[in-house]
Formats: sequence, structure tokens, C-alpha cells
Amino acid sequence: MSPHKAPDSSRRSDRSRRAIHDAALALVGEVGYARTTIEGIAARAGVGKQTIYRWWPSKAAVLMEAFLDMGARQAAVADTTGGGGEHGIPDTGDLAADLKLVLRATVDELNDPAIEAPTRALTAEAVIDPALGARFVENLLEPQLQLYVTRLRSAQEAGEVRADVDPRTALELLIAPLTHRWLLRTLPLTHDYADSVVDHALRGLSVRP
Amino acid sequence: MSPHKAPDSSRRSDRSRRAIHDAALALVGEVGYARTTIEGIAARAGVGKQTIYRWWPSKAAVLMEAFLDMGARQAAVADTTGGGGEHGIPDTGDLAADLKLVLRATVDELNDPAIEAPTRALTAEAVIDPALGARFVENLLEPQLQLYVTRLRSAQEAGEVRADVDPRTALELLIAPLTHRWLLRTLPLTHDYADSVVDHALRGLSVRP
Repeated sequence: MSPHKAPDSSRRSDRSRRAIHDAALALVGEVGYARTTIEGIAARAGVGKQTIYRWWPSKAAVLMEAFLDMGARQAAVADTTGGGGEHGIPDTGDLAADLKLVLRATVDELNDPAIEAPTRALTAEAVIDPALGARFVENLLEPQLQLYVTRLRSAQEAGEVRADVDPRTALELLIAPLTHRWLLRTLPLTHDYADSVVDHALRGLSVRP
Repeated sequence: MSPHKAPDSSRRSDRSRRAIHDAALALVGEVGYARTTIEGIAARAGVGKQTIYRWWPSKAAVLMEAFLDMGARQAAVADTTGGGGEHGIPDTGDLAADLKLVLRATVDELNDPAIEAPTRALTAEAVIDPALGARFVENLLEPQLQLYVTRLRSAQEAGEVRADVDPRTALELLIAPLTHRWLLRTLPLTHDYADSVVDHALRGLSVRP
């Protein structure tokens, strides 16, 4: 590798990679997972399909990396706007406020067509295809869920959350209602709803003895 | 209609209808929603495809009715075994016990391949197709969710659940975690998990003040 050529070709690579990610996300949102092809992604990204075949073993691999890249970009934005993201859920010492901030941001993402459409298409495919589903959970979903585990553990150490609560189970009461409402479109997905899920989960439904 | 012919032809009708439902559920579980056809259902049910076209406007309509029929049959079984179902969630005065009974039964259904496969295929299609999704929610999902609303209201009247809880929101903390774990196969769906969701939702996560 010549010292002159390397930075240029690496910049070109990054640009192509980003173009391929964007094309994959746009296409899967527009025509669905099944009708998205390597050829279609290549044409839309303005690269040869051999470029894609050289870098990725399959369509699923391209899409998964495109999603990871989208997550990383959102986290970079969230870092500058105070929202949550890859880098963790804020820990201000007020668990309810921190969770509401992150779940409201999740509501905004799921109501944003540019994020919603590809996320829905990939999630539906993960529901149908167990192998893709396993990669989806391992690479995309579980790392996000672990951010809640970390935040809930910290709230346990602060004496804010009961010590007998298993964070990995408890977090599902916070995020599954939003996913359910979003995936099945039962009722509107709003900030008020996110707040109310947090309040219900933290305080419980029972009359206190 | 002759008085002799009517009962026979109505019995034949019921038998054909049931055979068509069973064929539709089996096929969609085996090959998925997209590859299930009216022709395939007719062949498997041993009826002419014109019989299906005469009774139903679309494949989606056949499947939706097959699911409603499966739900009605499960409710009939539940009535004789003490489980939940179409006819309501039991009300013994112990909300946690009643919810655990019903959610454990749900876990069993979702772990039963004969129910799991067609339910997963239809749910995935509802996620992708907004029109089918709306029918799925209106005809199948929301009537089931309303059983939880009824049970939670009764617990409010009994002073067991806080008066400021909205039952339609609260029920999602009970059922969405199971749906999430089932659809995305994150972790095993067990009776212990159902119990623990009920305990978390009823008692809340916070340390009581």
C-alpha cells in the first residue's frame, strides 16, 4: 500500500460502504426484505454488485451491518442531543426521568418513516426466519437491551429499584409494550404512552399494602 | 330448501368449512402466508377451489376465519379445563393467580407447534401488511385484550388494582413481554417467566416509599 494511495482508497471505501448501507435500508423499507436484492442495492448505491459480493457474504449480512451503522449514527446524534443510544442510557439518578427520555426517543424513531420502514421489514423477517432472527437478536436487539440491564442495576445499587428484581426480565415490561403497539399498530405510539408505561412498570399496578 | 335436504347439506357445509380451516392453518404454518394459496387450501381440504371462492372473498378472509374458529375451539376446551379463553379470564378474587393461569396457558399455546406456526405466520403478515394487520387487531387481538380490561376493571372495583391505572394501558405490561419474547425468540418462554411478568407488573419495580 503506498502512503499516498491508502487514505484516498479508504475514504472511497467508506463512502461506498455508506452508500450501500443507505441503499439497502431504503430498498428494504420500500419493497420489503424478500424483494430486496444485492443487484438492487448495487444499482441504487451506484456500485458494481461484485463490490457487495466482495465485502458481504449475503443480503442479510449487508442489512444487518446497515442497521448497526444506522444505530451508530443515531448514537452519535444522541450524544450531542442528550438522548440515549449505543453509548448507554443516561444516569441522572432519577430512573423514571432517564427511562422516559430514552423511550420517548424510541417513540420518535419508530414514528420516523426513514427508520420505521426498514426496521419493520427486518423485524418481520426476524419473526419468520429463525436464523436471521438469531442474528438480529444477537447483533442488534440484545446489545440495546443490555443498556437497560446496566441502568436498572445502577438503580438497584442506588436503592431505587427492588433488590429482588431481575433486570433482564424487568426491562421487558418497559420496552415490550412499545414494540407490541408499534409492530401490531394497536393504538397510537406517543410520548404520553411511553411515560405511562414507565410509571406503570416502576410503581406497579397493585394497591400498596 | 327441502326439509330433508337442509340438515344434511348444512352438516356437509360445516364439515367442509372445518376441513378448509384446518387446511389453511396447516398450510400457512408449513409454507408461510405468502406461499399459501386458495388452490393449495382446496387441494388439502379435499374440496373444489370454487367452494372456497363461493364462501370467502380472499385468502386473508379464509385464514382470519380459521383463526377465529381455532380460538372458539380453544375456548370450548378451556371451558371444560378451567383455563381462560374467549369466554373471559377467571375471576376468583385473586388477580395474580388468575393472570398467571391465563398467561401460563398462553405460554403453552405459543410453545405448541400446531398453534405456534400459523399464529406466527399470520402475525408476521399483520406486521408487514397494514390492511391485514388492522383486520387481525380488530377481529382477533383486540377482543382478547378486552378480556384483560374486564378482569382489571373488576380488580379495581375490588380495590386490588389502583384506581388511577388505565386497564387498556396496564394490560400491555402483562401480555407484551410474552409476545415480544415469543416473536423475537430472545429467551425461553416458560411458566416461570409468565409468573414473573405478573409479579413485576402487579408489584412494580420501585422500592416502595
